[in-house]
Amino acid sequence: MNPNQSNTTEPNSPDQYAALGALAAQLRVDSIRCSTRAGSGHPTSSLSAADLMSVLLSRHLRYDWDQPSLATNDHLIFSKGHASPLLYSMYRAVGVIGEDELVNTYRQFGSRLQGHPTPILPWVDVATGSLGQGLPDAVGVALAGKYLDKLPFHTWVLCGDSEMAEGSMWEALDKAAYYKLGNLTAIIDVNRLGQDGPTEFEWDMNRYAQRVKAFGAHAIIIDGHDLTAIDDALTRARSNPEQPTVILAKTIKGKGVPEVENKNGWHGKAIPADIAELAIAALGGPTGLQTTSPLPDPGTPAISPNPHADITLPRWEIGEKVATRAAFGAAITALAARPDVVVLDGEVGNSTHAGEFKDAAPERFFEMFISEQQLIASTIGISVRGYVAFASSFAAFLISRPFDFIRMAGVSEVSIRLVGTHAGVEIGQDGPSQMALEDIAAMRAVHTSTVLYAADAPSTAQLIRTMSDTSGISYLRATRGAYPVLYGPDEQFPIGGCKVHHAGPDDGVALIGAGVTVHECLTAARQLAEAGINARVIDLYSIKPLDAHTLRRTCLDTGGRIVIAEDHYPQGGIGAAVLEALASPDTPELHIKHLAVKGLPTSGTPAELLDAAGISARHITAAARELLQGNP
Amino acid sequence: MNPNQSNTTEPNSPDQYAALGALAAQLRVDSIRCSTRAGSGHPTSSLSAADLMSVLLSRHLRYDWDQPSLATNDHLIFSKGHASPLLYSMYRAVGVIGEDELVNTYRQFGSRLQGHPTPILPWVDVATGSLGQGLPDAVGVALAGKYLDKLPFHTWVLCGDSEMAEGSMWEALDKAAYYKLGNLTAIIDVNRLGQDGPTEFEWDMNRYAQRVKAFGAHAIIIDGHDLTAIDDALTRARSNPEQPTVILAKTIKGKGVPEVENKNGWHGKAIPADIAELAIAALGGPTGLQTTSPLPDPGTPAISPNPHADITLPRWEIGEKVATRAAFGAAITALAARPDVVVLDGEVGNSTHAGEFKDAAPERFFEMFISEQQLIASTIGISVRGYVAFASSFAAFLISRPFDFIRMAGVSEVSIRLVGTHAGVEIGQDGPSQMALEDIAAMRAVHTSTVLYAADAPSTAQLIRTMSDTSGISYLRATRGAYPVLYGPDEQFPIGGCKVHHAGPDDGVALIGAGVTVHECLTAARQLAEAGINARVIDLYSIKPLDAHTLRRTCLDTGGRIVIAEDHYPQGGIGAAVLEALASPDTPELHIKHLAVKGLPTSGTPAELLDAAGISARHITAAARELLQGNP
Repeated sequence: MNPNQSNTTEPNSPDQYAALGALAAQLRVDSIRCSTRAGSGHPTSSLSAADLMSVLLSRHLRYDWDQPSLATNDHLIFSKGHASPLLYSMYRAVGVIGEDELVNTYRQFGSRLQGHPTPILPWVDVATGSLGQGLPDAVGVALAGKYLDKLPFHTWVLCGDSEMAEGSMWEALDKAAYYKLGNLTAIIDVNRLGQDGPTEFEWDMNRYAQRVKAFGAHAIIIDGHDLTAIDDALTRARSNPEQPTVILAKTIKGKGVPEVENKNGWHGKAIPADIAELAIAALGGPTGLQTTSPLPDPGTPAISPNPHADITLPRWEIGEKVATRAAFGAAITALAARPDVVVLDGEVGNSTHAGEFKDAAPERFFEMFISEQQLIASTIGISVRGYVAFASSFAAFLISRPFDFIRMAGVSEVSIRLVGTHAGVEIGQDGPSQMALEDIAAMRAVHTSTVLYAADAPSTAQLIRTMSDTSGISYLRATRGAYPVLYGPDEQFPIGGCKVHHAGPDDGVALIGAGVTVHECLTAARQLAEAGINARVIDLYSIKPLDAHTLRRTCLDTGGRIVIAEDHYPQGGIGAAVLEALASPDTPELHIKHLAVKGLPTSGTPAELLDAAGISARHITAAARELLQGNP
Repeated sequence: MNPNQSNTTEPNSPDQYAALGALAAQLRVDSIRCSTRAGSGHPTSSLSAADLMSVLLSRHLRYDWDQPSLATNDHLIFSKGHASPLLYSMYRAVGVIGEDELVNTYRQFGSRLQGHPTPILPWVDVATGSLGQGLPDAVGVALAGKYLDKLPFHTWVLCGDSEMAEGSMWEALDKAAYYKLGNLTAIIDVNRLGQDGPTEFEWDMNRYAQRVKAFGAHAIIIDGHDLTAIDDALTRARSNPEQPTVILAKTIKGKGVPEVENKNGWHGKAIPADIAELAIAALGGPTGLQTTSPLPDPGTPAISPNPHADITLPRWEIGEKVATRAAFGAAITALAARPDVVVLDGEVGNSTHAGEFKDAAPERFFEMFISEQQLIASTIGISVRGYVAFASSFAAFLISRPFDFIRMAGVSEVSIRLVGTHAGVEIGQDGPSQMALEDIAAMRAVHTSTVLYAADAPSTAQLIRTMSDTSGISYLRATRGAYPVLYGPDEQFPIGGCKVHHAGPDDGVALIGAGVTVHECLTAARQLAEAGINARVIDLYSIKPLDAHTLRRTCLDTGGRIVIAEDHYPQGGIGAAVLEALASPDTPELHIKHLAVKGLPTSGTPAELLDAAGISARHITAAARELLQGNP
């Protein structure tokens, strides 16, 4: 389509501006009403952006409100999620929620109109409320629109000025410019006041503009209460297909309520009833104006999912030494046959092996460079558009750097797939800064998470394929070094399962590991067998969910004697997962030795470090013997 | 002192430049030797910066190498920690490590010369290796120098170009400019190549300069191999006391080894022995040049710690309703009497109550605005200078947003104090984006961490004072709402302890909570008592370390019947901490009901949400009854 023939750029009449002003007044009145009724919320942060949103909603957002999942709809993300009164007032203005729901249920228990928006509402793409995340997520949506869907929808983001202090906002603009996302517009509501006093730059619009331009975006400074200027800026925002736009709107916090306008101390506070009553009256009182958004042009995404695509996973011989990160690379490359599979990496694709996917399907690989927050945010945004998106990096950086983004992906209940390579002390010489040793604890605690840790190549490949069909946040931890293939190519690895080795009726002890420690447990079992001790080994490849039934059965079989070995700190990891699964009103008898990384590791060879951490076969064997001596 | 009379700005002679060139050659040779000998490491990333560091070390870094803890020493932080071969070669050149240690122990098990630098070396301030952290940490060091120490030391940071994609680098520059840190210089080694291909901007030096200037720093573009230009830039870096400087040095990755110069595919790889041998010869072979750094002028920090300062903690009446976040504010304000206590907040000081400290000691309060990564990094840097630094924000943002910085603070083994308010579903109406529900799991797994969660105001105040004397990373989780004071003002709360309520010889069950759930447990115990059931309540204010002895004793006393209630997701939190502590070769008999937040919370009142999450008194009572019915 020709962007110059857009259905939103016709000249506007004075009458139309009057209507936009009336709509803005209603948005203000409704923002005040719902938050005053709730007794909490952020009306002043809503009032500052009401004029911006009035014009956007009525003239620029191309959206079929009857079909929120229409592929051609524009996207609107409130990065300043605390302005939810304004967002919900917009929903009322287009008729998708009613006055009673807005005014009487906002922030109430059981209402979908929560304090900060979540995708429980069909018009919300991602949960916001942790500042500095909406714009990064929107970059992912716009990436999908431009490079995958190849649809002309536009992604609009309402941002706060306070959140421009988050580095993630600059990661987002950097990537938006790098990827020439002309389909992305950020509207910064520069209302000068944060939660606790003035922002760094207050109303120094040029400072913002200088930064925005330096980061490669088109900067437009406007008076955010001038409807004509807003209309013009929103029109211009669509005009450059190769560059993102940032509209810097100078606004007044609390605009429309003279008692609180531009005053500190009113962030996150409902307007008191008496002040609210006067302000509502001055704004024209409650109204029932309805507006419509322009409809998007018809279109179809360039990529159609094909769940029946023929996937041929790589095969390995049992005993062959293969790194699970290499198995990830091979498996994800096989999955490239599914047209909706997308991979993103943080400039370490040559180490994670994600680079192999790039070679196979370059049009569906996105390099995020060293910016793990944007790596996850892009993955979230691409997933919002329905793609099966995987993100990979070193586990230490993939999980801990963007942990707040992962947490919020849980709140969004969006489906993303994470592959963290180079986990644990096993990485060796690079030392502790590169060793993920807290990732399992962190990831297990995330809402919707699945946590996997494969010991060999075939299980990795099978689990990667399974992840592509798994909803929520799935995380696979992969190992740097090469270890023997344990399983045949047709072995199945259902999520929530485990693999039991050497089970027999006389097992005196069970050795539980995952990933690299499975190999140590198997070696220990051989050592114990030589001493006449039958040890069962459990490959706990699925850490969350976890096969509680098999664990309980194992306790009953071994008299509760269990050694757990994990390449992770002792807290919250595999040991905790096992204990949580067993703990119940009827917890079995337990005699446990828990081997995990204690203290700060150093550089060394993987074998030296596994041994120094006390999680090598030698230590597992000794622990098993100790348990058996205690309970012969 | 007059910066124009610096001892490093005298004119330099051609002979001196020749010496600097020879030193640079030695740094290159040594960087190659140690990494080739180790068989791994990042020589090419070291070679690009050798000229920069030769000039800095010999002429601009004011450092008494015999006294690394001298308060007046400059600081040198390798934000690109992977260039450790270069850093260690510099240490050899000033004579603090020997040739044998450098060449023969680098990256070996047991060596202090690890793959990435850590403060196990007395000249290293902070561990680096997770990119985008050294510069943020340095901002903290420079903040301390300018505003606390009031000493003229300079903080120099060697940064990589790849890491400029991390938003945290821009958070750092933003705060450096905001706080007018003329005592901070970042040297960006723009060698064009990342780990996996060219960087975003390659050698587009103006793009970098534009961004740096927009963020308020003084930008100087130089040829990073021109010794005269380097010398001039480093001189100018000290000339502006009110503005940080960023030297953008165009360099060649692998400079000095023609086979790898400016070639992709050589990141993080040792130079093969044959190529290394030729390159070392061409560089002049191994040499034993020694250099000295200019000495700093004498000086004394403006602040002296006073461990005997009179601290009068606030007092409350038992039964009075006080929010623990308010108790934090009161306690930290009392601690302001200690001259080395410093507080930082992320623009929510009016909610965390850190703002009260700001009122009491504004010169020791630093507003970090909405940039939690820089909040933690500044806290780390200020702690490096010996101050007792506390950082506060909402728990959800304080822990999850900068989790990688907290992880790295663990690797640094630096002491920082974190206070996260507004934890759990208890926060109510704001909804799930604001609820920390995974912070305990994440924080427990961090090396050196102490995790505390106080139930009332006096315990909060006591623990805050204890944190000021606690090494490592200590984290106190605080609650939004006001709850009754449980303890008298003189009650003690040692780390690793717990408080037992209602213990008796006939206790049929123990109810374990922390923070807000202690109050629910106490209510449940009263309900159970009315039904004739004796329930013991444990206030587990110290979650890590944890009082395993009391827990074990409790199990023996109650027949192992335990209800655990926590305002956190079920994985890795308080329940896991209890189970980990009890699991042993001799685990006691256990009958456990674990109540935790399952699923995604919504908005609502705190009471509604605690009940909906299944962690209110009603649910605790029911769980206890169920255990007792199962095991009468």
